[in-house]
Amino acid sequence: MFYLRTCILFLFLFLFPFCVFAEDGSQLWLRFPNVKNGISTDKIISKGKNPTLDIAKKELTTYWQGQAVELRTEKSLKNLKDGYTIISGLDKIIISSAKETGLLYGVYHILRLQQTQSDLTHLNITEKPSYDVRILNHWDNLDGSIERGYAGHSLWKWEDLPGTISPRYEAYARANASIGINAVVLNNVNASPNMLKNEYLIKVKALADIFRPYGIKVYLSVNFSSPKVIGGLENSDPLNKKVQEWWKQKTNEIYKIIPDFGGFLVKANSEGQPGPQDYGRTHADGANMMADVLKPHGGIVMWRAFVYSASPEDRAKQAYLEFLPLDGKFRDNVIIQIKNGPIDFQPREPFNPLFGALKKTSEMVEFQITQEYLGFSNHLVFLGPLFKETLDSDTYAYGKGSTVSKVTDGTLRPAKLTAISAVANIGDETNWTGNHFAQANWYAFGRLAWNHQLGSDQIAGEWIKMTFTDDKNFVNPVKEMMLSSRETAVDYMMPLGLHHIFAFDHHYGPEPWGNIPGGRPDWMPVYYHKADENGLGFNRTQTGSNAVAQYFPPLNETYGNIETCPENLILWFHHVPWKYTMKDGKSLWDELCYTYDKGVKNVREYQKTWDRMEPYVDAERFHHVQSRLKIQSKDAVWWKDACLLYFQTYSKMPIPYDIERPVHELEDLKKIKLDMKHHN
Amino acid sequence: MFYLRTCILFLFLFLFPFCVFAEDGSQLWLRFPNVKNGISTDKIISKGKNPTLDIAKKELTTYWQGQAVELRTEKSLKNLKDGYTIISGLDKIIISSAKETGLLYGVYHILRLQQTQSDLTHLNITEKPSYDVRILNHWDNLDGSIERGYAGHSLWKWEDLPGTISPRYEAYARANASIGINAVVLNNVNASPNMLKNEYLIKVKALADIFRPYGIKVYLSVNFSSPKVIGGLENSDPLNKKVQEWWKQKTNEIYKIIPDFGGFLVKANSEGQPGPQDYGRTHADGANMMADVLKPHGGIVMWRAFVYSASPEDRAKQAYLEFLPLDGKFRDNVIIQIKNGPIDFQPREPFNPLFGALKKTSEMVEFQITQEYLGFSNHLVFLGPLFKETLDSDTYAYGKGSTVSKVTDGTLRPAKLTAISAVANIGDETNWTGNHFAQANWYAFGRLAWNHQLGSDQIAGEWIKMTFTDDKNFVNPVKEMMLSSRETAVDYMMPLGLHHIFAFDHHYGPEPWGNIPGGRPDWMPVYYHKADENGLGFNRTQTGSNAVAQYFPPLNETYGNIETCPENLILWFHHVPWKYTMKDGKSLWDELCYTYDKGVKNVREYQKTWDRMEPYVDAERFHHVQSRLKIQSKDAVWWKDACLLYFQTYSKMPIPYDIERPVHELEDLKKIKLDMKHHN
Repeated sequence: MFYLRTCILFLFLFLFPFCVFAEDGSQLWLRFPNVKNGISTDKIISKGKNPTLDIAKKELTTYWQGQAVELRTEKSLKNLKDGYTIISGLDKIIISSAKETGLLYGVYHILRLQQTQSDLTHLNITEKPSYDVRILNHWDNLDGSIERGYAGHSLWKWEDLPGTISPRYEAYARANASIGINAVVLNNVNASPNMLKNEYLIKVKALADIFRPYGIKVYLSVNFSSPKVIGGLENSDPLNKKVQEWWKQKTNEIYKIIPDFGGFLVKANSEGQPGPQDYGRTHADGANMMADVLKPHGGIVMWRAFVYSASPEDRAKQAYLEFLPLDGKFRDNVIIQIKNGPIDFQPREPFNPLFGALKKTSEMVEFQITQEYLGFSNHLVFLGPLFKETLDSDTYAYGKGSTVSKVTDGTLRPAKLTAISAVANIGDETNWTGNHFAQANWYAFGRLAWNHQLGSDQIAGEWIKMTFTDDKNFVNPVKEMMLSSRETAVDYMMPLGLHHIFAFDHHYGPEPWGNIPGGRPDWMPVYYHKADENGLGFNRTQTGSNAVAQYFPPLNETYGNIETCPENLILWFHHVPWKYTMKDGKSLWDELCYTYDKGVKNVREYQKTWDRMEPYVDAERFHHVQSRLKIQSKDAVWWKDACLLYFQTYSKMPIPYDIERPVHELEDLKKIKLDMKHHN
Repeated sequence: MFYLRTCILFLFLFLFPFCVFAEDGSQLWLRFPNVKNGISTDKIISKGKNPTLDIAKKELTTYWQGQAVELRTEKSLKNLKDGYTIISGLDKIIISSAKETGLLYGVYHILRLQQTQSDLTHLNITEKPSYDVRILNHWDNLDGSIERGYAGHSLWKWEDLPGTISPRYEAYARANASIGINAVVLNNVNASPNMLKNEYLIKVKALADIFRPYGIKVYLSVNFSSPKVIGGLENSDPLNKKVQEWWKQKTNEIYKIIPDFGGFLVKANSEGQPGPQDYGRTHADGANMMADVLKPHGGIVMWRAFVYSASPEDRAKQAYLEFLPLDGKFRDNVIIQIKNGPIDFQPREPFNPLFGALKKTSEMVEFQITQEYLGFSNHLVFLGPLFKETLDSDTYAYGKGSTVSKVTDGTLRPAKLTAISAVANIGDETNWTGNHFAQANWYAFGRLAWNHQLGSDQIAGEWIKMTFTDDKNFVNPVKEMMLSSRETAVDYMMPLGLHHIFAFDHHYGPEPWGNIPGGRPDWMPVYYHKADENGLGFNRTQTGSNAVAQYFPPLNETYGNIETCPENLILWFHHVPWKYTMKDGKSLWDELCYTYDKGVKNVREYQKTWDRMEPYVDAERFHHVQSRLKIQSKDAVWWKDACLLYFQTYSKMPIPYDIERPVHELEDLKKIKLDMKHHN
């Protein structure tokens, strides 16, 4: 097995230089100068031998063209965790870290500086990661499909593992290491119990072995019913000793196979998944049972707060209501994984009110990189600004300045462990993410997980220069396009706080009229927009669901008062009359119309921007992106027409006549039923 | 039969007032004031009794609300043909004509004036029709289908005739009479021989009887092979005495059944139809044979010049080459029916060079009202300007000022008979023409056939006021839209002289790449646009097909010189280099791009215009037109994208970057194969 893997790896590395010119996006942002060699081995000063150091050195000898590099392992830098320092002069760069992984990160740092044409001779850098665990969640199933995956099938070839090792496993690890990602959940949160079978654990080990030198730990999503389903037990009740014993044995088995195994991610009692409540137990009972067996091995439990049921209670309130009473009841190696917003990865949501509300429980953010609600891999939507919007949101949990980042990164309440996660957008397509620009979202998450103080502007700039070119004629317009793209998507999909008016199930395209008779109300668009003849929007104030009360003062007041509520969330918190006067003097209806129209216009501007870039980019990627922008442009019109024509049946007001008119018939749009699955 | 017909008619007329408020377009432009009654019978002064006069009086007693009306038959007005005079004072209007039909036309004239809010008390009008025969050609088949029909099935219910009489037959005759149309070819020029069978002639008689009081004569398209196919003769050779005898007997039979039968329309030796050339005879031999047997009855032959074969000769030249040698060889009751342009009813063509070239032969124009090449009944294209463009074209046949109208209306060479024809757009849909605005094309043809000096502006204005409202907030913008609509269609379909780059066979949508292997070259778009790396367009100058030589001086020079050729025909006559500098300084390629884009923008403006009209028009017609404009808007983008992306593969130049970018992929567009028939 080892021999075969080495062979394939060798073949891959041997062929790699020849692949450089196939501009298919397979290189991601790791497009280092096209040279035969970097510096010679004798210009690398490094003590000791270690697989991670070996990778660092190989990167330098292959790509680094600057001065000599010293890689120093410095135990004194322990408080930087896997961070590092970089100090440089004309002749030498010194990278220091307490850990080898830190040294590898430092090497990627200077390679990035080289690639982005930065000055390399006066460096004095100290980097400490914002979060300890920077983790990608793969929603990959054992059958090779990916839930909400839009870039082909799963990267993990379970059938071939452990015998056959795809060269992409290492390429994947390298890409993650280059941006500081150090953890990966391999499988879907809607987890198959089979994942924990020994035959799969051996396959997981193969991946863990490849990832380890790149500083990456492997985690698994687990099905709460595993003891019953694959263990043959009578139930999976967390207070059942046999169940506890089963988990203990299983965990021991895992650690025997993968000594540095990271831990479990659990989706329990949500959307049909089993969980402790099936046995009258709490989420704490369930999480703690697992935490106890992981604890001796240093493992953790990431327990998802994304729980809601078809109750009459506003879905946006349910996670808070469920978890707040459990605050303080979780073990210290349990961390509650909370989606950025209270509903579900919408184009725009307010931050989840659980952030800061759990005072005695570790919390981590869960973002979604894969664009389930943002046009799949067809739409160009740079998520940096979305991530930042949540991280910078002030919860006021500990007074002004209690941003989501500060309540999760250990600043405001020292945490045993800090973490941040995101659902990956990676599949087995050559360009990894379906759309070349979707690579930027993987990149942005990694960079922000490392340092949440980075600006979207800087991240986009780095990524463009690394991925395409540093020609400012390209960088500036493309960056401008990327930075505005998320707001544009909000504009043409669901502006002003509208949410979840997507087509049923697959979530591609508009379906504001969605209301399946007998279906779960909280899965229906009409539940979320509440359009009627009076107005539009979900009343979450005191006169409505009172979800505003879950926010700390003064946010409960700010959001709860229609006059002070930010207009980009006004329909999230208020049922607003059609003729309500917005801050710019327009009626709500007119504002809605102009905003949808702005979205369409902006996408058309992106097309113009991109077409002008043709001289600066290879034909292959140029045409690929051009083609996706065409789809986005058509989709934007589809969204605009569907939403305006539908809401117009309630507003009874004309679309302002200076706006480009709909080209669709509402009745035709209602007939569209795309044959899309959750996954490719 | 008579009883049944009367019953149905009665029912129709009884129900008619109740239908007025169903704004379904069935009333066409005949939307007279909604009153219970017009003037009383005693205010109508008229001598004699006649079915035509009865209709005139009924229209007055039903709709006329002004002063008393005297209808005078004045033989002295014979030189006005079926024209009339109108003189009015405060108390009385006198309408005079040599013919009862003229009096009926006069009544429709004053009703139109009443409807368009004109002054009715100082009238002093003399009207003489521009053409004697003002004829609609129906391309209706005996099976109820219509070739190039986009408004349902045939109005003629052959299976039900003569027993059952649809009330629409009379409504059709009334509409025609109201605009001066006095002739109708009932069946497709691709004629079934069965049309001449006695069983069908009896059905034709039923229609003729209904049309007669409205001043309308019936004509038939005949299949040249009829003697052989339904007569059982050995052949249909026009010099075969038996054939001549067959036609004589058949014609006598027709006239016995329909004493005022108009004559024959013949498509011979074209697109697979039989003709005299099948027997080595000329078109003159064929036409004269028929003319001879029609002559004693006062009937005429309309012989189509639309003949071309798959020869290496430029299709645009073939009709001229075929017919010029026959000039002077036709009987005086033969009239050559010539399509307005030398190819086939394209969005824009130069006039057909046969006009004025046949010096000793009567010529008539054939227009196409049905929008075979103009977006079917989906696109709003007002054809007034197209008709005028041909009629006003100066052929220079008799020196400057020899317009097509003057060489066909008897001005420049006294003709025994003058005529003008157009292929109807009428079907059995409630609104007659599929698109409400297509009614205006029927109307415009009738009005121009009556008076080719009318301006498109006046015609559009009349039609709008009669069909919708005389509110200037509606009339002005809608008229502006109509008047520019033909140029807009040219812009988004085939500007600058491009032609025949439609999808194969059905002609809906673009197919500039069309080039079916082994297909007839002259049916392929590439034959017409001749795009290559050097440029675009059909070289019809001396260095090319020399079609320009078929035009009289100075047009042969004007068209033949790229510097003087009108730019709206430049690609018709020249193969123009992509970088050729147009008069506005742009390259040909850029000009092409901007023109297609202008077409798209204009359609979007029409949508805005129309949507603003909502307060002035009933909901039913408003939404119907709105819906068609949406289709037109999408189609315009489709045309633009298809043509620009395709031609770009030759020009290799970028679409100017300030132009809205394509939203389609060329390869996807090439895959579109619409399942459309010639007819509904």
